[in-house]
This record gives sequence, C-alpha cells and structure tokens, in this order.
Amino acid sequence: MPDAFDDKLTAARAASLALATATTDLKNTALEAIAAALEAGSNEIIAANEVDLENGRQNGLSEALRDRLRLTPERIVALAGAVREIVVLADPVGQSIRGSKLPNGVRIDQVRVPFGVVGVIYEARPNVTVDIAALALKSGNAAVLRGGSAAESTNRVLASLIQDALASAGLPPAAVQTVDEFGREGGTRLMRARGAVDVLIPRGSAGLIQAVVTESQVPVIETGDGVVHIFLDASANEDWAVDIVHDAKVQRPSVCNAVETLLVHEAAAERLLPAVLGRLRASGVTVHGDEATLAIVADGVPATEEDWSTEYMSLDLSVRVVASLDEAMEHIRRYSTHHTESIITNDLANAERFLNEVDSAVVMVNASTRFTDGGEFGFGAEVGISTQKLHARGPMGLPELTSTKWTVRGSGQSRG
Amino acid sequence: MPDAFDDKLTAARAASLALATATTDLKNTALEAIAAALEAGSNEIIAANEVDLENGRQNGLSEALRDRLRLTPERIVALAGAVREIVVLADPVGQSIRGSKLPNGVRIDQVRVPFGVVGVIYEARPNVTVDIAALALKSGNAAVLRGGSAAESTNRVLASLIQDALASAGLPPAAVQTVDEFGREGGTRLMRARGAVDVLIPRGSAGLIQAVVTESQVPVIETGDGVVHIFLDASANEDWAVDIVHDAKVQRPSVCNAVETLLVHEAAAERLLPAVLGRLRASGVTVHGDEATLAIVADGVPATEEDWSTEYMSLDLSVRVVASLDEAMEHIRRYSTHHTESIITNDLANAERFLNEVDSAVVMVNASTRFTDGGEFGFGAEVGISTQKLHARGPMGLPELTSTKWTVRGSGQSRG
Repeated sequence: MPDAFDDKLTAARAASLALATATTDLKNTALEAIAAALEAGSNEIIAANEVDLENGRQNGLSEALRDRLRLTPERIVALAGAVREIVVLADPVGQSIRGSKLPNGVRIDQVRVPFGVVGVIYEARPNVTVDIAALALKSGNAAVLRGGSAAESTNRVLASLIQDALASAGLPPAAVQTVDEFGREGGTRLMRARGAVDVLIPRGSAGLIQAVVTESQVPVIETGDGVVHIFLDASANEDWAVDIVHDAKVQRPSVCNAVETLLVHEAAAERLLPAVLGRLRASGVTVHGDEATLAIVADGVPATEEDWSTEYMSLDLSVRVVASLDEAMEHIRRYSTHHTESIITNDLANAERFLNEVDSAVVMVNASTRFTDGGEFGFGAEVGISTQKLHARGPMGLPELTSTKWTVRGSGQSRG
Repeated sequence: MPDAFDDKLTAARAASLALATATTDLKNTALEAIAAALEAGSNEIIAANEVDLENGRQNGLSEALRDRLRLTPERIVALAGAVREIVVLADPVGQSIRGSKLPNGVRIDQVRVPFGVVGVIYEARPNVTVDIAALALKSGNAAVLRGGSAAESTNRVLASLIQDALASAGLPPAAVQTVDEFGREGGTRLMRARGAVDVLIPRGSAGLIQAVVTESQVPVIETGDGVVHIFLDASANEDWAVDIVHDAKVQRPSVCNAVETLLVHEAAAERLLPAVLGRLRASGVTVHGDEATLAIVADGVPATEEDWSTEYMSLDLSVRVVASLDEAMEHIRRYSTHHTESIITNDLANAERFLNEVDSAVVMVNASTRFTDGGEFGFGAEVGISTQKLHARGPMGLPELTSTKWTVRGSGQSRG
C-alpha cells in the first residue's frame, strides 16, 4: 500500500510533468514570486529559525553549525537576491545539443530535458533549501528535499512559502517538497526510490556523501570534498607561487577548492619555501611539514600520514618536498579526492604532462585552485562541484541538472 | 591484504594511465593487431569454444543460448572485421567540448578524457568480449570483464590473444582482463570496487541489469530493455501505419528497439487495425488484443495485464484501443521502460505534444522504432542503448565511454 511518503513522490512525478513543459517565462514568474514570498515571510522564517536554533543550543549544536543554521533579515534578503539571479540565467530545457538529417531523410535531434524528480539530501543549512529549489525549478525538475533535522522548522516554513508562491504562479506546489518529517527514514527511502526519483544529489560532509553514494539505488551525482594540491615545480616563479598558494589557502579556507597540500620540487624548496610559507604564517596558517620542509622552515609541526588525506577546511596546510614531477603526481594519485590540482611552473613540457596525467575534475597551470567555481567559470550559479566521472565533472551549472532525449521526425520511414 | 582480484584492479588502473595518454595511432595499431590475432588464433578459439559448448550441452543450456555462445570461422572473421571498423572511428579522447577565456585572462577548456577503468558484466556471448575490449581500447579505457561462466574457456583464449596483441603494439596487456575465474564473486566485487572501477556497464537480460543497478556501489550505465510503443493517432496515414508497425515488429523481433505494444486511437481503430494487423499476421505475428481490438480483428488472444509490461522479443504484439492521445501517453507512462516510443500521425499539435511529453530516451514521429540504433544514428559503433537519464541517454557511441576534465591555464592569477 502506498503511504504518505509514496504519495509525496507520486505528487512530485505529477508536478514534474507540468514543469517539463512549463515555459521559461512561467518558471521565471514563479522564481520572482518565491523571492517576494521569502522577503514578505521574513518574520515567519526567523521565528521558525529561532525554534531550530534554541533546539540546537539545547542539543549542544556547535556555534559553527548554529551559524550555518541561522537566518537573519539580511541573510533572507540575500537568499531572495540569489533566487532573482537565477531568473536571468539561460533556461537549459529545450536547448539542442546536436542533430542531423539521416541519409533516408529522417531528422534526429538531441535536446535537453529535465531529469524529472531530483532528490537532495543535505545538512542543516536552510540556504540550500532555497538554492536547490530555485535551481531545480529553473531546470524544470521537481525537487524532493531531505534537509538536516536541526533545520526542520525553518525548512517547513521555507517550503510552505515556496509552495504558495508556486501556486500563485500557476505551477503545482508539489514541485518543491520536503520529507524532513520522515526523519532518517526520509533519506533512506529517497535512496531506494529507483524509478520514482531520477537523480539523487547529496550535499554536505564527506561522511554524508559517502553514505549516499554507497547505499543509493538511485543514480547519484557526487559533489565531493576536496583534498586539493598545488605543486611548485623547479622552475616556478616565486611571486606567482607566493600569491597563488596564499590565495588558495587563506582567501576562504572553509571551502572545497581551498588548497590542503603543497608539494614542492626539491630543487626549488630552499628558494621558494621561506617566502611562500612566510606569507602564509603572517596570515595565521599552521604548516604540517615533512622532514625536508621543517629543515628549511622550522616553525611548523611534523606532518603525519593522516595529514596527507585530510581536508582541513581551516588555516592548516600540509607541505611535502618531492624529488620530481613524477613523485608529485604519484602523491596526488594516492591522496587526492580528484577535485582540483594546480602546478606552478615555467616548464612547458611539465605543464602539459600535469594537465594530461593528473586525473582530477579540474587541472590547472599557474592559477589558484579557488577558480574551481561555477560563478568563476561563468555559469552564473553553481549546483555543486562534481567529483565523479559520470554525467558531470567539475563545477555544475543549470545544464548539468538536465538529461537529454532524442527526437526523431520521419515521414513514414522503415528500416527493413 | 590485497588478493589476486585486487591485483587485477591495480594492474587495470596502471594500464589505464598508459592508455589515457596513448596516441590514436598507437591505439589503432593495437586494434589492427587484435584483429589479426583473432584471425590467426581461430583454431585455438574454436577449440576452447567447443569445450564451453560441450559443457553447455551437458548442463542443459538451451540451443538458443548455445547459438549465442558458438563461434565459427566465419563468426571470428566477422569479429575481426568489427574490430577493424573501430579503427576508422574518430578518437573521442582529447576532443574539446567548450572553452573560454575568463575576464581575468585565465583560459578554461572542457576536454574529453577516458573514464579510466570500465567494468563490464555480461552473459555468455563471446562477441561482447571482443566488442567491448575494442571499444574500451579506442576510448582509452582499461576494461575488466566478467563474462558468463558458460563462456569461460572461450573468453580466456580471447583475452589471452588480445593481451598478446596489446603487448606486441607496446601497450600494457592488463588493459583488457577477465575476472571470470572468480565466478559470481567476480561480479560482486566489481560492483563494490568504488574508486578502483570508474564505471560499470551491465549488458544482457533485464534481470542481470536490475541486479547490477540496485547492488552496485560503482556508478552504472544502464543499458535497458525495451517495452517499446507505437501509437496510431486518429489521423495516421494507413500506408505508414502498416509499414512502420510491420518493420518495427517483424524486421528483427529479438532486439530491444522492436515494438511490443501498439496503441490505436478509437477513432482510427476500424480504419487501420484490419490492414495493420493483417500484414502482421501474414508474417506470423500473434496479436494479444484488448476487448475493443478483438471486436475488430477476431483472430488474436486476449491480452492480460502482464502483456502490457512484457518485452516479448518474439513475434508477439499487444494491442490496445485508447480514447485519446492523453490515454495513450498515460499508458506509456505506466508501462514503458523509457526506451523508444513512436506516434504515427498527421496532426502537428499531437506530434509536438508526443515529442515533448513522452519521457523516453528516443521519441519519434512517423518513423520505425528500429531506428534507435548507434549505427543508424551515424555513430559508427554502438556501446549499447542507455535507458537511464544520467550521463548518456539513448544510443551510446565512443564519446559516451568518456568523461571530461577541465583544464585551466593561467599566468599567476589569484581570486582574492
């Protein structure tokens, strides 16, 4: 017997059919209505958020997690602004990717279509609720959201405001639904809903993502963590090395494209490390160095085996001296999460080898790893950064939230 | 402790690194060597195949399955020919998909790269062993093959010949390996080898594919079965209806793009069904009709609920009269495997609604469903027909056996 959970997925499927044929104008009207509803509902959202924050305090939620959970009038205005930014993005649905006329006169075209129903499993960050709802809507997908339990009250109000806005624009409210009321079971059932959910996107900690990718029977887009490397080659320009490593570590250490491990060619270690690490230390970075590093720059802590596979997301950096480009690439092969790696070099052959042989979503020469970002890549908005090889790899924009179909137009042709 | 299975995956990964940077010329040389080795090894292959066939006879393998298992001198020549056809196909590796220069002067390019290690789980069809090895090689991927146990001797000889050919061309033999010696465990471990195997492709029966898609922790490309529909709209041209339905059912009934269910608009049933079904009956097709169909064309059998979701792969066709385009699309939504559906109509609005609203990999107007085929689409070779929405949908060619990476070339740029 279908239960309340199944009913939600059935409603999502029905809504997805309406969304798939909705015009861009209609979807944009709905996005504008959502932005306005968030602003008009600011007091209601904040009241619900206060309940979640108070529960968080009582349950010992850390101040950092409570800060991610917290919504303020300013943050709600920013959320509404982010929704309006999606209005101006190109609608991927209906875009032709390729097409041709076959010798027998049959015309074939590959066109972008929505996935249908997208499931999202994430943590207690209410901004994700709004972001993903808006991105899914613009790409013609119904969204079924399982947010963190710690944000349940906030998400309930956000979903309700979004649903009212959808209805006011003439779209089915079930296009955006939460399944938070089912608790952990909500996430588990999303992972088993093959056929009812077309794609599942986990967003959050490495642990959450690993659990989903190994347990899900629904195809998953993995937006992974980043153990990101920069390799200073023997010929690296000192100014570039200093600036890029500082930017990649310090500009925003808590994000996945921040560098976590610095590899240095032994022929350049004495020339580069004092300036590179000096600049970092001035910004409060703790160096976890191997023996060779600490022989050159004394004030660090010894790196442990664990350091090489740690995504610090903080002002910490592991540093290792290597004998060659090959040793650097071997280290990356072993410890990288295949997100982003960059080489700083003036050697053309080494640059090309690094670009060709390092198997990561984004490989760079002489640029900061912080450029791995949908906004920086010109996508306008970012769905996440995929670290898997199927479907999408690297920063994902709206087109990555679509599938394709082939249309075939004949005039009575048979094959036999 | 790594065991013999892990060792094979480690060797596959090492081989994939060599393949990823192999030139097209080198890969083509290896393909030519494989084709020559198959022809030169014909006697050896047939002797091993005789062992498998004899075991099959003793184990009660059906004649149909033994025919799929059987290799003859002619079939081996055809297999070698198929390998040579892949030589002339464009190499997808290195193709640029898109690129741009960012405002700050950083250049970004999205280029095709091999997946790395591709796992394939299939049944006792030795031709798949050769096909997939050649397709994987051309697309720069190492292949780890788990074929049906009934073909184990044949596959062992085929893999050995292929490995010798790879070595003679200067490529690592571990680029193509079988794990048949591990029995069922070989398939199970491939499904759990997340990180070591990049993509898993099951090929074969619906049961095999379902088992892999629900159990695998490695991302899967689902090449699915086809419960394929044709809808004869009220305005359908009679000649087109007769020819297309006959072609789609009779030309090759055992394949996934053959039609299994015919839906007919009630306003056209009396006009079209006698001719359409008469032509089919003359070719030996059994009609499984609903009540309205059997009222018009008497010599069929009553359709059961099960018929609507059955992929016959034989000279059987289920037929149902519907009241409207909407009822036809509702039937398709309920029973289709989302492979291919076609409408025969002269009504422009209905044609566009069908193309837009039917959620299948390939949707057609006035053409035979048999056109859903990599060869017909001009891909040159076909890896399979994907019925999932992630990564590839519909006929897959060599580019669908690749992932992408972003290359970023800067001159010292930072973001902050």
